Amino acid sequence: MNAPAGLRILPVAGVPEVRPGDDLAALLARAAGDDLEAGDVLVVAHKVVSKAEGRVAPTGDRRKVALAESTEVLRRRGDMIIAVTRHGFVCANAGVDASNVPGDNVVLLPLDPDLSARRLRTRLARLTGKEVAVIVSDTFGRAWREGQTNVAIGVAGMDPFLDHRGETDMHGRTLEATRIAVADELAGAAEIVMGKSSGVCAAIVKGAPVRRGPGDARALVRSPENDLFR
Amino acid sequence: MNAPAGLRILPVAGVPEVRPGDDLAALLARAAGDDLEAGDVLVVAHKVVSKAEGRVAPTGDRRKVALAESTEVLRRRGDMIIAVTRHGFVCANAGVDASNVPGDNVVLLPLDPDLSARRLRTRLARLTGKEVAVIVSDTFGRAWREGQTNVAIGVAGMDPFLDHRGETDMHGRTLEATRIAVADELAGAAEIVMGKSSGVCAAIVKGAPVRRGPGDARALVRSPENDLFR
Repeated sequence: MNAPAGLRILPVAGVPEVRPGDDLAALLARAAGDDLEAGDVLVVAHKVVSKAEGRVAPTGDRRKVALAESTEVLRRRGDMIIAVTRHGFVCANAGVDASNVPGDNVVLLPLDPDLSARRLRTRLARLTGKEVAVIVSDTFGRAWREGQTNVAIGVAGMDPFLDHRGETDMHGRTLEATRIAVADELAGAAEIVMGKSSGVCAAIVKGAPVRRGPGDARALVRSPENDLFR
Repeated sequence: MNAPAGLRILPVAGVPEVRPGDDLAALLARAAGDDLEAGDVLVVAHKVVSKAEGRVAPTGDRRKVALAESTEVLRRRGDMIIAVTRHGFVCANAGVDASNVPGDNVVLLPLDPDLSARRLRTRLARLTGKEVAVIVSDTFGRAWREGQTNVAIGVAGMDPFLDHRGETDMHGRTLEATRIAVADELAGAAEIVMGKSSGVCAAIVKGAPVRRGPGDARALVRSPENDLFR
């Protein structure tokens, strides 16, 4: 296999505050302009997706909102819960988040982030004529390691994995359990240019060696039976 | 805060098979050539670091080797253990890995990957006159999510975190618990261009908005007392 060429990751700046019902694909297409090309991967922060879809709630009792978004609470610490969301994601407060939201509101995760990604991808293709893959991302904590990283909660138009199982290494030895969650790595890479308070809600990745075609972020959820750490 | 400019991530190709005692910084500097510039972040797969440092063992009973590298075994499944390494990292088989190793050998993690990163950084500066940050990376699985991603096990010349706590968002609201493990995101981004069987053992990241200065990957280890998932 040849070494892949380099990656480029460009911030998408200039998307205005998103309101329920907004045509997010149109806002992204306008902000991205010629930077967006066929074959790119567009990573979009879930917050603008949720806002466009009206997944916003009054802050009220935020703990109660988080519980309503959870199917299971794995741990509690003070005000914070580590919960399983309806999608199967494990994260703090079931993804309910108060930053970068106007007024006294919180943003919830999209009801079906894979569907959100597919719709964005379809609408972008219609508006721009460009076929891209779409990742909807959120910022999650992890077990065992400090700090948070961005991961993929919705995926469309690409396999979320790069599966090296069965390939051979330089010494002809079969690679073992290497199945890279490339959608998560791309979400994390995009986070680096999106920042947190800069108003950049999306990033364009060029040159990612992903497998185009169907794929979803639900495949990134480890089933409870296969999870040794719940 | 202005939106950061884009990132570029370039593979470093052409490093020959690394042997114990090799001057890895010299091999990397030669392979990177003019692609490496002051201010870049150089991500290096731990495998070549370990090989240069002689952290290679005969395969023998691989389970026994993994146990010898562990300070604690958290879980077992079949042949695989999830272990805590001497550094505090939680990963499969204590990081003992057989792929991309010539002969009947396995590669262990460096004894002190932060020290490895600092030495590489210092030696690169001496050889090339360029001050860069260095991340030593490995491929780890995660709780709750399928697939593996690359993370930082050694860091030099940069803060492994981008700490947004205390910053305000676009609406003047203080950001909550957002402390991004940017070294892990950079390691993951570099993985995308390094691949697994391509013989590319390093990548250069340009434009990363990291905080230069001292920093280490040990800070990425969550202390057992603060870890709800052990």
